[in-house]
Amino acid sequence: MESFGIAGGDKRQLYLARSLREDGYPVYFHGLEALNEEGEFPSLSIEEMGERCEVVLLPLPASRDGLELNAPFSQKPIVLNDGFANAFRNCLVIGGMVGKLKASSPLWEQSRFLDYYQREELTLGNAFLTAEGAVALALEHSPGALGGSHCLVTGFGRIGKALCLALRGMGAQVACCARKPWDLTAIRALGCEALEYSHVNGQYDVIFNTVPARVVGEEILSRQGPDTILIELASAPGGIDRQAVEKCRLSVVEAPSLPGRFSPKASGELIKEAVYHILEERRRP
Amino acid sequence: MESFGIAGGDKRQLYLARSLREDGYPVYFHGLEALNEEGEFPSLSIEEMGERCEVVLLPLPASRDGLELNAPFSQKPIVLNDGFANAFRNCLVIGGMVGKLKASSPLWEQSRFLDYYQREELTLGNAFLTAEGAVALALEHSPGALGGSHCLVTGFGRIGKALCLALRGMGAQVACCARKPWDLTAIRALGCEALEYSHVNGQYDVIFNTVPARVVGEEILSRQGPDTILIELASAPGGIDRQAVEKCRLSVVEAPSLPGRFSPKASGELIKEAVYHILEERRRP
Amino acid sequence: MESFGIAGGDKRQLYLARSLREDGYPVYFHGLEALNEEGEFPSLSIEEMGERCEVVLLPLPASRDGLELNAPFSQKPIVLNDGFANAFRNCLVIGGMVGKLKASSPLWEQSRFLDYYQREELTLGNAFLTAEGAVALALEHSPGALGGSHCLVTGFGRIGKALCLALRGMGAQVACCARKPWDLTAIRALGCEALEYSHVNGQYDVIFNTVPARVVGEEILSRQGPDTILIELASAPGGIDRQAVEKCRLSVVEAPSLPGRFSPKASGELIKEAVYHILEERRRP
Amino acid sequence: MESFGIAGGDKRQLYLARSLREDGYPVYFHGLEALNEEGEFPSLSIEEMGERCEVVLLPLPASRDGLELNAPFSQKPIVLNDGFANAFRNCLVIGGMVGKLKASSPLWEQSRFLDYYQREELTLGNAFLTAEGAVALALEHSPGALGGSHCLVTGFGRIGKALCLALRGMGAQVACCARKPWDLTAIRALGCEALEYSHVNGQYDVIFNTVPARVVGEEILSRQGPDTILIELASAPGGIDRQAVEKCRLSVVEAPSLPGRFSPKASGELIKEAVYHILEERRRP
Repeated sequence: MESFGIAGGDKRQLYLARSLREDGYPVYFHGLEALNEEGEFPSLSIEEMGERCEVVLLPLPASRDGLELNAPFSQKPIVLNDGFANAFRNCLVIGGMVGKLKASSPLWEQSRFLDYYQREELTLGNAFLTAEGAVALALEHSPGALGGSHCLVTGFGRIGKALCLALRGMGAQVACCARKPWDLTAIRALGCEALEYSHVNGQYDVIFNTVPARVVGEEILSRQGPDTILIELASAPGGIDRQAVEKCRLSVVEAPSLPGRFSPKASGELIKEAVYHILEERRRP
Repeated sequence: MESFGIAGGDKRQLYLARSLREDGYPVYFHGLEALNEEGEFPSLSIEEMGERCEVVLLPLPASRDGLELNAPFSQKPIVLNDGFANAFRNCLVIGGMVGKLKASSPLWEQSRFLDYYQREELTLGNAFLTAEGAVALALEHSPGALGGSHCLVTGFGRIGKALCLALRGMGAQVACCARKPWDLTAIRALGCEALEYSHVNGQYDVIFNTVPARVVGEEILSRQGPDTILIELASAPGGIDRQAVEKCRLSVVEAPSLPGRFSPKASGELIKEAVYHILEERRRP
Repeated sequence: MESFGIAGGDKRQLYLARSLREDGYPVYFHGLEALNEEGEFPSLSIEEMGERCEVVLLPLPASRDGLELNAPFSQKPIVLNDGFANAFRNCLVIGGMVGKLKASSPLWEQSRFLDYYQREELTLGNAFLTAEGAVALALEHSPGALGGSHCLVTGFGRIGKALCLALRGMGAQVACCARKPWDLTAIRALGCEALEYSHVNGQYDVIFNTVPARVVGEEILSRQGPDTILIELASAPGGIDRQAVEKCRLSVVEAPSLPGRFSPKASGELIKEAVYHILEERRRP
Repeated sequence: MESFGIAGGDKRQLYLARSLREDGYPVYFHGLEALNEEGEFPSLSIEEMGERCEVVLLPLPASRDGLELNAPFSQKPIVLNDGFANAFRNCLVIGGMVGKLKASSPLWEQSRFLDYYQREELTLGNAFLTAEGAVALALEHSPGALGGSHCLVTGFGRIGKALCLALRGMGAQVACCARKPWDLTAIRALGCEALEYSHVNGQYDVIFNTVPARVVGEEILSRQGPDTILIELASAPGGIDRQAVEKCRLSVVEAPSLPGRFSPKASGELIKEAVYHILEERRRP
């Protein structure tokens, strides 16, 4: 039975650890002090973790800058260098969005190193959590009701799909923009209004952007009212034209990392599941 | 433990009988021969039933014309007269919509006689079943898809409410007409379009009438296309103007008795539940 | 055309005022200074308002203690006394939950005084808004996902109904407790699990209480896990046993006044609609 | 502007023709006599159609046996041979599932020949229509209510997804079997129960099979009750073990070609859309 070391991360890692422990695995922490003040999990140094744990789990993203581990609840910064990489040379290391971390030391090339964020079950699960977080933001920031409101969703990828369903489930009238003909077909079949981008000409209570390309520009924004809420779900620089937002005196709700923020337990469990599937596949002959 | 006699009725009575038997009660039939060809339930004459059964269950409606029991699966007509009433003088008789039957003999005045159709749980349950049957008729008769279609529901009583929810659940765009301001509020909150009757001016794929008063007249009908389906859910004479229907070359799907037609088992179980509640209340001090 | 005076209240009154103004009515403020810093609406003294405005709208509730008007955004307290009542002697005064205010001066007896909170369209609309706020609280406070979670709703009144629909719309597995047989029928038909109170024995991710009587006691609470969230939607003292909560080391999210907190614009518009209906009915011969 | 010739097919072709005509195109028929008794569309011989029409649309499937065109409403059989292929040598021919037809003459190799059934918008649209048809069959054949019922869906492909959503929208409790971990994640997030095939052990009111491999065998079937309805949505031989069905005294509702049967208009419009997209793509440089 594996021992799991968890280095860095946020509340998701705490729930991940609890869920692993419930399944019977020993779990050790490094760099999560502020979430572990009562010593719920034993702490190890990097070197001890490398020796004691077969599997080491790194956060999502593993590093934001390539210099330090993503560890906001650590007492002190955890520098990424050859020493850090060397400590885990005998472990199976699994992290999320690991590109910058891998570039921090040539030693990682020789490690067994995997990315759980490339697992479809995690990506898709995160999309549903993101949609829930977006609904939470809309409920909090829009002064109107969601039931009966007019919402626009741009994009019908994983997040857009989940969002259309959730908003309709809350009683909203949903329009969704997409390019592919089969997406337009599905949008209509789900009871939403299917729009091509060039045909958006309504006023909405909430606009959710999921597309990482400038699709919400002045033409759309100039039609909105003072109470319209814009929610940016795409990663920076997003798809909402900020200059046009200012010109139209609207405001944008930034919405990065919604799964970790609104659903750390569900996020941790999604990571655990992805890790289990990775381990199962490695065990198969 | 009571013995139940079931006299007359249709498939609902068969499922009612099975459900009573599963609960451990003895059940006897009269006037259900065509549904009981293999003798699943013992048959009794009216007189035997009156002697052997504490509770006698009559159909819904108990009689259509006041002359005969509503017994379409009986070998021969069951005439309502003093003899019929007298046979059950010592039983608790429970039927549905019993007015015409009660008028058939003065002896009923002296009987213990109750109407299960006056139970809200049965009326409400039937409304949900009616809405399901209406969805089935729309799926069958409308050449278009229900998902993404435009539907109009007139009335927001029990059936109208259930229908709005079911249609939205199937992905339709639903407009609903009502008079009371709080109904309009609820319609909107459920993600449907709330309309006053005088404001209906769209073309719809399916129009469901639930109002037993002429609310779907020429003004609405003249706006519909050749593929528009009209479904009449209100009891005769209904709320759809038939002369205007002919003038506009539209056609009406008649939809009486949907619970018995599409959901005889669920209907029988609703009757059983209502009967149980009646018996419980009588037992309470 | 009426002039409207709005005295006291919160953000709902601001949106109410804007909505009245959009319909073309003159609107004046008293006791809303902190929401009106840029002078969006002209301010009047109580006396001026009484002279200038045909209709005076008071907040919901009009007073919390019977001593002062409910006016959290007023520069100074607005005392309820004969002077206050006298100022409005020629106006039509419409407020929400006006009992304590009316008791503050015998002069109110001679006023034309109405309660918009007794309008079903407002009560029902508020129930939908409360359900939305409750979903927002669940999304914010529960560390898990709502989609796929197990939720318990106690009570199937206006709020319970709206909540069951919204939770199911978000993908939750919903159980709902009720007493009336027809409520149990409806709960099942909506795809939720219908429970009698004595049969609750599961562990839930979120428990929403809507019943103003002790229905969530130790027997239910002792079965919950450390991540279970309790949301109290009933007015004080609510229906969740606080001693048992402490004993079981759970925590309660207090949830008063959700419509004003999460949907001030929608709340203000519901008040406007109720006021319009009151005025219409008074105009009718 | 193109002229369209429509040869063979069923009611879908009639609605396809009407929809093309509404867009302004001339449309001609061959082999649709029984649907065109009043001469709504002009009829042409095969040779005339080949000369007069730029685009010829064949049915879905184009041929069932490779010997005749699929033309159930034709006065006489339309034999597939070199003459048939030669007639259309100068046309753009677009049909659905055209394999067997293409094999009927070597001349087709030299034709411009396309398959609209390979368009994702048509396949996906058909999946939604199939799900609607499956709901209609369940409503018609199951004696119970759909709301509150327990349904099992096997497979979470296009049809399985659409079916889960529609059933939940109708208030059913839905379990869905799938293999891929991300499918299980999505099933849960949509408020359904996610099951691995080996874990199915419940009794259901309706079982919908969408998988074209033996996944519903004796182990599942032996647990079902006499009122359980089985609906086979996969193409022959389907996924329901017929021997086990007989052994368990259950019955199967065959459900081929649901889109054409329940939604010919929507099907025809999907074909039209796919054809338009094909033509647009051919026009692009």
